[in-house]
Amino acid sequence: MLPPLSPRPDDAPRVALVGAGPGDPELLTLAALRALEAADVVLHDRLVPAAILALAPRARLVAVGKEGFGPAMPQAGINRLLVNHARSGAQVVRLKGGDPAIFGRLEDEAAALEAAGIAFRVIPGITAASAAAAALGRGLTQRGRNAGLRIVTGHDMRGFADQDWRGLAAPGAVAAIYMGKRAARFLQGRLLMHGAAPATPVTLVENASLPGQRILPATLADLPKAAADTTGPVLLLLGIAPRGAAALLPDTLSDLLEAHP
Amino acid sequence: MLPPLSPRPDDAPRVALVGAGPGDPELLTLAALRALEAADVVLHDRLVPAAILALAPRARLVAVGKEGFGPAMPQAGINRLLVNHARSGAQVVRLKGGDPAIFGRLEDEAAALEAAGIAFRVIPGITAASAAAAALGRGLTQRGRNAGLRIVTGHDMRGFADQDWRGLAAPGAVAAIYMGKRAARFLQGRLLMHGAAPATPVTLVENASLPGQRILPATLADLPKAAADTTGPVLLLLGIAPRGAAALLPDTLSDLLEAHP
Repeated sequence: MLPPLSPRPDDAPRVALVGAGPGDPELLTLAALRALEAADVVLHDRLVPAAILALAPRARLVAVGKEGFGPAMPQAGINRLLVNHARSGAQVVRLKGGDPAIFGRLEDEAAALEAAGIAFRVIPGITAASAAAAALGRGLTQRGRNAGLRIVTGHDMRGFADQDWRGLAAPGAVAAIYMGKRAARFLQGRLLMHGAAPATPVTLVENASLPGQRILPATLADLPKAAADTTGPVLLLLGIAPRGAAALLPDTLSDLLEAHP
Repeated sequence: MLPPLSPRPDDAPRVALVGAGPGDPELLTLAALRALEAADVVLHDRLVPAAILALAPRARLVAVGKEGFGPAMPQAGINRLLVNHARSGAQVVRLKGGDPAIFGRLEDEAAALEAAGIAFRVIPGITAASAAAAALGRGLTQRGRNAGLRIVTGHDMRGFADQDWRGLAAPGAVAAIYMGKRAARFLQGRLLMHGAAPATPVTLVENASLPGQRILPATLADLPKAAADTTGPVLLLLGIAPRGAAALLPDTLSDLLEAHP
């Protein structure tokens, strides 16, 4: 049973922008589950798994948004659907992978709702970086190692400024890189160019939290090869190795450590 | 009713390091709720609200860890409790505010468990940055504005390297600053010194997700004043203003905008 919690007021917004988390239904929040259960319409990212959509039994399910690098409904179309369903009086959930505030295009949809005079609420979700770190049993921060963390996207890396590369390449830097699989070779080149060590650990977490989850320990030196070995969504953790990584790291690392002592 | 999900295998670790999220029980994950319901012992951060602890009806509750800047149980003591309770055969939940991987000292406790040969799992939680962004209805990233986000702590800011300050002070930079209240004046000084505009928005979210939640729009210029006006835990969002901020921003911003057009 869900615990008894205060009921939502009658005037609570009927539109909710909801984080679905990384994919495991167990990593939904209670608030997200309740919103799905009450929804008349769920406009969902294509990557949200069926097991999560099944939690909205009353709702009409509409797939919108991009599927990896595949075809996408233009953002204007999503905004229009959102506004039109809200105006119809429906309880509308816009269900996004991960956390809506992190690479979730929340701003576009929030602005469209505001322009239409429609109130909304945001239910945060577990972002992929947290799920990937949990899979590794590692902290993204650690006293004495890194007092900060960068969350970046590989999707439009070419627009990055030079000082960001310097920061990312600095010893001890930790970054969670979203959508970095296709940018793996580019990332490798830029980071090495800015002084990162080839032996810098990069851990790839594929399908974080899902049954097909895989953890691929790599280094900057073999990042492109490791990325090419994946088929599902991948989060890159720069500067983080799996626990007990010495036993797990591929042979190339020991080669590298010999070559770059 | 919770949805039917696959049962945990009998050999699943009995120790779980669990993210409690920002404080609202509705922002617990389903996995966290189940772990609490099954727990014999819950070792919890002092800041975890009673409404969340009440979800572990069978458990012995033990408050550990720090309370803001107040007295703390030394980390070694927490590690010892964790190991001893696990060895007793109990289902043990180590419940941490937010996400265990982000400023949650996960590494210390994971290492202690590993050293004792005790298996554990990590259940991620909603981190304060996601909750604060949801409260504002704002994205932490936005296409064309910032393709990256920094998550930093104000607690040991004095150790920060210069290039980090330059990055944080750059136009358009967005950062979620944890435990930044006491460092407000220091942060302001360093950021201004590295070229940040005094009118750079900084939004303070106090008690994110809790009944006492307050959103204080400010700028770098009046950050220390705004921070002094808070009593609960505060997350600072550098580079982010509330939606419709023009109407909400304090008079000082319009003064500043006139002074620094």
